[in-house]
Formats: sequence, C-alpha cells, structure tokens
Amino acid sequence: MSTEIRNAIMAGNEKLMAAASRGDATAMAALYTENGQVLPPNSDAVSGRQAIQSFWQGAIQMGIKAVKLETVEVENYGTTANEVGRFTIQGEGGQVVDSGKYVVIWKQEAGQWKLHRDIWNSSRPAPGQ
Amino acid sequence: MSTEIRNAIMAGNEKLMAAASRGDATAMAALYTENGQVLPPNSDAVSGRQAIQSFWQGAIQMGIKAVKLETVEVENYGTTANEVGRFTIQGEGGQVVDSGKYVVIWKQEAGQWKLHRDIWNSSRPAPGQ
Repeated sequence: MSTEIRNAIMAGNEKLMAAASRGDATAMAALYTENGQVLPPNSDAVSGRQAIQSFWQGAIQMGIKAVKLETVEVENYGTTANEVGRFTIQGEGGQVVDSGKYVVIWKQEAGQWKLHRDIWNSSRPAPGQ
Repeated sequence: MSTEIRNAIMAGNEKLMAAASRGDATAMAALYTENGQVLPPNSDAVSGRQAIQSFWQGAIQMGIKAVKLETVEVENYGTTANEVGRFTIQGEGGQVVDSGKYVVIWKQEAGQWKLHRDIWNSSRPAPGQ
C-alpha cells in the first residue's frame, strides 16, 4: 500500500472537511466522481453530483457546521482505493451531533482522487434505545 | 468485470442469507475473513470472527429471522472485490423490520470469497422523524 495514495486520500478528505466548514456544498459535490453516490443513513441512495450537492446543501441547512474525518485504513488497486474511517459531525458551537464509521470507495478521475461510493452510519445508540 | 466473480459474490450472499434464515451465527461468521469487520449502525466496529459471531447471535436473539441481499454492483481487483447492494431484514412472520443499502469489501482467502468489511445503513426515516 503506497503512502502516496494514502496521502492523496487524506488530502481529499481535508478538502471535504474544509468545504463542509465553509458550508460550501458545491465544493463538496465537486470532490465526488461524475457518477458518484452518497449512501446516507435514513435516505435512499443519492446519485450524481447535482443530487449530492443538494444532499449536502440540505445537511448544511439542517445545521451541520463541520465534518471531521479520520482515515483508519486505505487499500489501493490501480485507480480505485478503499478507505475505512471514523467521522464526527459537529453542529453549532462545535457540539458533536453524531459520530460513527464510514467506507469510501475512491476513484481516480482525470488524475484526481474522488469519492465514488460513500456510506456511513452512526456508532451512537438508536434514538429511543 | 468478470461474471465469474460476481457469481462468486452472489453465491457468498446466498450462503449468508441461508445461514441467517436458520439462525446459524457460527456459519454467518465463517463467511467473513479472519480479520473481518462488521460496521453496524448504532454500534462500534465489530472486529474478528468471534466478535462477528456474537454480533449476529445477538441480532438473531433480537428476532431477526431473515436477511435478503440484492447485489447492485460488483467491481473486482485481483483478490479484492467491492460490492454495493440493497438489503431487507425480516422478523417474525416475514415482517420487514428494516431495509437499506450496504457496501461490502470482499477478499479471497484460501480460495474462498469472504466478507472483509461490511457496512450498511437504513433507508427508512430515523425513528421519531
């Protein structure tokens, strides 16, 4: 596993975190492949950059102020890389509103590593449990 | 993408569904790699076959009677394959208790395709929403 690819993935995550912190859903969507998919909890699959932008716009409007991503493992296969990581979502005043784990399948598209499939879930107990 | 690999993945899913239907957590755990991880909603990561067996045992004791898996896409990279799919979980009397989407990273281990990383989430609205 090349350190170079891991660094490229982590740089992609840095861009995603920076875009989320500025509330810039357009920049977030641009980090996904043309045919990217977000597979969010409590929602159907969100397919394509336009829909991904709307999804993140909605999340920002609901009060998400920051997303923290921590890469746990990366495996690379040519122009594909699999990442497993942990996330924290922050709302107003840095309040942690959710935390859990994710798997992202990255693809190199036009020389850039982009998120292609993005799925996560909460590690917190289900509401009401 | 070879049809052969897709068929092998789908055969693995058939075994998982059959084991779940018989309530056989040991057989379910045996379908994961030695260092396999289940990343379930509302739980920390579950690492290794023993812990995976306990996780599925708990799910069966909570009333899960069947798991239905539908492969949407498979991409293969040597001894690794990425699968995206849809699931349905059934309780007593075939009642659908949850449905959503998943990503599984499969690995060939000792000539067998096994689940290596397994993450999913519900497509249903969050409880209380």
